[in-house]
Amino acid sequence: MKLGMIGDRGHNGYVLAGLEEMSHVRVVGLSPGTEEDDVGRLKGWCDEHGHNPRVFADYRRMLDELAPDVVSVCGPFELHAEMCIEAFRRGIHVFCEKPVATTLEDLAALRAAHGEAGVHFAAMMGLRYDPAFYTAWRAVRGGAIGSVRLVNTRKSYKLGHRPAYYRRRETYGGTIPWVGSHAIDWIHWFSDESFLSVYATHSVRYNRDHGDLEVSALCHFVMTNEVLASASIDYLRPASAPTHGDDRVRVVGTDGVVEVRDGQVLLINDATDGEESLAPVCDRQIFADFVAHVEGKAVALLGAEGTLAVTEACLLARQSADEGRAV
Amino acid sequence: MKLGMIGDRGHNGYVLAGLEEMSHVRVVGLSPGTEEDDVGRLKGWCDEHGHNPRVFADYRRMLDELAPDVVSVCGPFELHAEMCIEAFRRGIHVFCEKPVATTLEDLAALRAAHGEAGVHFAAMMGLRYDPAFYTAWRAVRGGAIGSVRLVNTRKSYKLGHRPAYYRRRETYGGTIPWVGSHAIDWIHWFSDESFLSVYATHSVRYNRDHGDLEVSALCHFVMTNEVLASASIDYLRPASAPTHGDDRVRVVGTDGVVEVRDGQVLLINDATDGEESLAPVCDRQIFADFVAHVEGKAVALLGAEGTLAVTEACLLARQSADEGRAV
Repeated sequence: MKLGMIGDRGHNGYVLAGLEEMSHVRVVGLSPGTEEDDVGRLKGWCDEHGHNPRVFADYRRMLDELAPDVVSVCGPFELHAEMCIEAFRRGIHVFCEKPVATTLEDLAALRAAHGEAGVHFAAMMGLRYDPAFYTAWRAVRGGAIGSVRLVNTRKSYKLGHRPAYYRRRETYGGTIPWVGSHAIDWIHWFSDESFLSVYATHSVRYNRDHGDLEVSALCHFVMTNEVLASASIDYLRPASAPTHGDDRVRVVGTDGVVEVRDGQVLLINDATDGEESLAPVCDRQIFADFVAHVEGKAVALLGAEGTLAVTEACLLARQSADEGRAV
Repeated sequence: MKLGMIGDRGHNGYVLAGLEEMSHVRVVGLSPGTEEDDVGRLKGWCDEHGHNPRVFADYRRMLDELAPDVVSVCGPFELHAEMCIEAFRRGIHVFCEKPVATTLEDLAALRAAHGEAGVHFAAMMGLRYDPAFYTAWRAVRGGAIGSVRLVNTRKSYKLGHRPAYYRRRETYGGTIPWVGSHAIDWIHWFSDESFLSVYATHSVRYNRDHGDLEVSALCHFVMTNEVLASASIDYLRPASAPTHGDDRVRVVGTDGVVEVRDGQVLLINDATDGEESLAPVCDRQIFADFVAHVEGKAVALLGAEGTLAVTEACLLARQSADEGRAV
């Protein structure tokens, strides 16, 4: 299987970790995707790991000349949609950093192009493969809490000093789509319901000279079947905190509650003795799962439908926060 | 000091615990406040503890004949406002079960009557005096987390089997004002900001034959200074859970985060080594604090302004959830 890689922002590490597990997937081409970026780090990794890719300044030429089966997209956030669409038009499966689109217009074009291509398409929602989150999700799908009624999620990051492209809405997309997309993805994934409406707010105050970057945000979703869901998002985690991110989910059902916090999975239902811990285990790797799906050997945890639905929810949440009204 | 007690629903236990600390406060009168209720339990407690109250079918007569300095109000929820107003008109200080009003009309009348009376007035927000919440609040007020930017709160209760008056909106008031009022009070108390707007949702689904009672709800407040706040409220805590309620607050500031969970107080800021526990301590009792405030010996943790602001926020949140729009 031939892999082309576009860009090196974000979570390409998922791809590299997957490649180490799969000797039959070969990196045939690399392209920075934009003049500002470069693929030197990726080229070095390929050299060390026995891949021999050609490097292209223009990623479209790479797609045309090498006809890869699969591409990974980690270009500038605002070019994700265009890069995916170029691949779709050539019948190539796409594994894309989120957000896959930073505007609703781009998302509509992406959805249309994907619909015609019918290829596999997934965002790099790596936290679905985190052992704690995956274990909690399996418990929910296995009926441990009955019908889901309420989902509370949290993403809290350290701010540090972010590159210039984080400081402009045009190149960053906003904190709700960037940080919040994981939380919004959990809401969709755990509840297995569709988004009906969202009310969201965000604030740039106290962002330590990070321009447009919002450091606090809240989203409030109504899902089908009157399932209610919240996401709390911030960049205010103190530098002294033991981990970069504080990722949590709490899923409340008719017969129990499951919660992920500090890497633990905690369950209460009528079969537990008070609150019990579940051992966090995940035997799936996100990019290997993507490839197995393309090969028809597995159903990946995330596909085009979920990717597009969550991206739309993120962008509508951002719109709600910008406009101060439910959408 | 003469105390009259009206009704025996809700948290009269706060009053009784306070009386055990204060020998100079005497229960002079009891009234059920309504024909459905009785004060037999309270009368028994008074007999055992050396109080010798007269019992009145009509609480107004009790107020007129005994002229108590202070009354506690624990009548039917929908009569709280009227009972408080009757006391205000006679210049009596009022310690009232929350919600102090179940409609915005009643709240307006209550506010007006209180404004003319100028007496001390506080709702039974006992969780302000919980050692963990009080300790967290002292840390926030002491500057441990800088400026507050984001507040996440949670109230989760076991449903059990509730009396009939919980099953009708007219007599119960709704889950947001009843259960959620604590969470909404924390938002106001911890942030020290005013409520600007609220978007809320709630659902009665899976309420196990409890009529109008909502078993899940979410509220999303915008406070002054772009402080954002959420409240997650449910009656879905499993019967097997170790405690009746799961009460939490997380307050995110510019310089740190404080969290209360499972009775613990957890702080992260630049002075802590990762996450540190604060010992939960509260040396104040809610009704004793109320009395000390009346006597000019202390400033109570809660007064009329906070009580009225939080009640208004609760009722507007309920309205938002009923109407499906931000208010």
